[in-house]
Amino acid sequence: MKLLDATLALIKPVDPALLASAQALLDNKTKPLGSLGRLEEFGRRYAAIQGSTKPTLGKKVIFTFAGDHGVVAEGVSAFPAEVTPQMVFNFLNGGAGVNVLARHAGAEVRVVDMGVNFDFGALDGLIDRKIARGTQNLAKGPAMSREEAIAAVEAGIALALEAKADGITMLGTGDMGIGNTTPSSAIIAAFSGRSVRELTHRGTGINDAALEKKISAIESGLAVNQPDPADPLDVLAKVGGFEIAGIAGLVLGAAAAGIPVVVDGFISTAGALIASELHPSAKEYIFAAHKSVEIGHSCMLERIGTEAILDLQLRLGEGTGAALSMTLIEAGVKVLTEMASFADAGVSEQNV
Amino acid sequence: MKLLDATLALIKPVDPALLASAQALLDNKTKPLGSLGRLEEFGRRYAAIQGSTKPTLGKKVIFTFAGDHGVVAEGVSAFPAEVTPQMVFNFLNGGAGVNVLARHAGAEVRVVDMGVNFDFGALDGLIDRKIARGTQNLAKGPAMSREEAIAAVEAGIALALEAKADGITMLGTGDMGIGNTTPSSAIIAAFSGRSVRELTHRGTGINDAALEKKISAIESGLAVNQPDPADPLDVLAKVGGFEIAGIAGLVLGAAAAGIPVVVDGFISTAGALIASELHPSAKEYIFAAHKSVEIGHSCMLERIGTEAILDLQLRLGEGTGAALSMTLIEAGVKVLTEMASFADAGVSEQNV
Repeated sequence: MKLLDATLALIKPVDPALLASAQALLDNKTKPLGSLGRLEEFGRRYAAIQGSTKPTLGKKVIFTFAGDHGVVAEGVSAFPAEVTPQMVFNFLNGGAGVNVLARHAGAEVRVVDMGVNFDFGALDGLIDRKIARGTQNLAKGPAMSREEAIAAVEAGIALALEAKADGITMLGTGDMGIGNTTPSSAIIAAFSGRSVRELTHRGTGINDAALEKKISAIESGLAVNQPDPADPLDVLAKVGGFEIAGIAGLVLGAAAAGIPVVVDGFISTAGALIASELHPSAKEYIFAAHKSVEIGHSCMLERIGTEAILDLQLRLGEGTGAALSMTLIEAGVKVLTEMASFADAGVSEQNV
Repeated sequence: MKLLDATLALIKPVDPALLASAQALLDNKTKPLGSLGRLEEFGRRYAAIQGSTKPTLGKKVIFTFAGDHGVVAEGVSAFPAEVTPQMVFNFLNGGAGVNVLARHAGAEVRVVDMGVNFDFGALDGLIDRKIARGTQNLAKGPAMSREEAIAAVEAGIALALEAKADGITMLGTGDMGIGNTTPSSAIIAAFSGRSVRELTHRGTGINDAALEKKISAIESGLAVNQPDPADPLDVLAKVGGFEIAGIAGLVLGAAAAGIPVVVDGFISTAGALIASELHPSAKEYIFAAHKSVEIGHSCMLERIGTEAILDLQLRLGEGTGAALSMTLIEAGVKVLTEMASFADAGVSEQNV
């Protein structure tokens, strides 16, 4: 709890004066006012988060957090749970979606075992932060203890702080965990009070029967556990997951360290939501990578107060959307740092 | 007319068998079926256009076509017409938005003078295809003659064919021309028959008074010229622009040569619409880069039968959106060519 408390104490709002100076520079670039739309927002926010109107681009890392879920016993997923460790091996071999897209974006992928139900032993390239071999079944009781939730969040915080010390300038989040749209839907249901049926979708592509099982698992989970929406750690412990906790920690650590963090899709946003419920300024460091087809996702983004960058009908997770969005954020930074001003280029300004 | 006719005769539909084989490969990658959404579409279409399920990525070029517009005399733009040549110099110096974003995407920018009202002389890096020093005022009569329209389209076709010969594997379009949202709105009004007021927006950011002038210039232009929507060259000549014609030609040339072409925003889509009205299969080679804030744009995209890749509230043109989208299309290609299959990775498949 010490690291978590210390981290929360470090998180400050992004400097509004820097946001304004960066926008003033953008307004002098050779283009109609505001005509680069959200790229201007990306450049302005990245600059203010980094603390300079002449921000630099550097190394990017996507942390893909993996964990298993006791709730798969309820038949909530189209894939067997053994796929979680199998995909960890796929990540380490470089063959998964996130590997391909991160290479394309020039980002490194770091794979973190937060709670996979498999004994990897010492495995080259795998970061071992395992809290337990999967969560308990949230439909029947708490997914984890409060102590486990805090330990998992603190593991994510520590990874962000180490990345800062390594000179990383942009972080991304990703997830792997068969069954993990179930805790993610449960989390947004707990915070929003909206109906589970309304917030629950087909995850990796389940049929109608599995969807009914998923809805009823989440409804049971909320009824049995009674998570307290005023206490984000209670929500996380009772209906969350280890990888979601790791993501929440990474977001908090990024905010404390002053690094922009690109939050992937539905599961990552569940983690980011926990982080921004724990500290309202955490959201100022978040870039929401893509709009998930999961229904609960837009409800989460609304609550965080941001809009997704991409809408490409992705529903893979892993950090795939984060990788794609990183290149767009960098584009926005380059608009700020590389475009000519009206004066530089001798171009006449707009009549106003 | 010979080159245009020969080009139209060369355009064939994309091979549906290749689209299906590429999708079958994508369906075996280690991810839930369809979970990479539009990236799968990009990979599949790029492969089929290139004619191989093992497509290669190569050199990318964005052609930024510049032209002036007689209709600026009606007070339709917030910027003075002198900005068109000033921006051409800015492009050649590498300081404009498209330069920054194309560098970021690893694409080359080629700047084409299709009809700027300025004598550049021989200028290093500028491709001179000038038809005339700006169009005539479309509010008072035809913007150009039918012969000029054909010559401008053929200039664009030739550039695409030369790019193919150079080994370029992806083309992008861009535009520069003060006043050019006016002909673009006129073009979609002519084809769709929808009301000018409904289709006309603020371009670079004009005020209410200029918006009224713009609407009435387009309404006059349609009334005076009576462009025939069944004859796309008639529409182009009477209410189009030289840079729009160049873009239409580039799209036709790309389709004939079997190269994917990434169509930027509103003005570029007006050119792409002319191309796809001239040949229905041309649209199969088009990737629509971004959703413009211009109201007429979605009407154009609907008519072409495609959806924009990005929605970042861009309204700059130049090819900026095309540059950004190229990296996403490449990401889709790499999903097809670099991701592991279930068998490769030893990952269990989805229960169906």
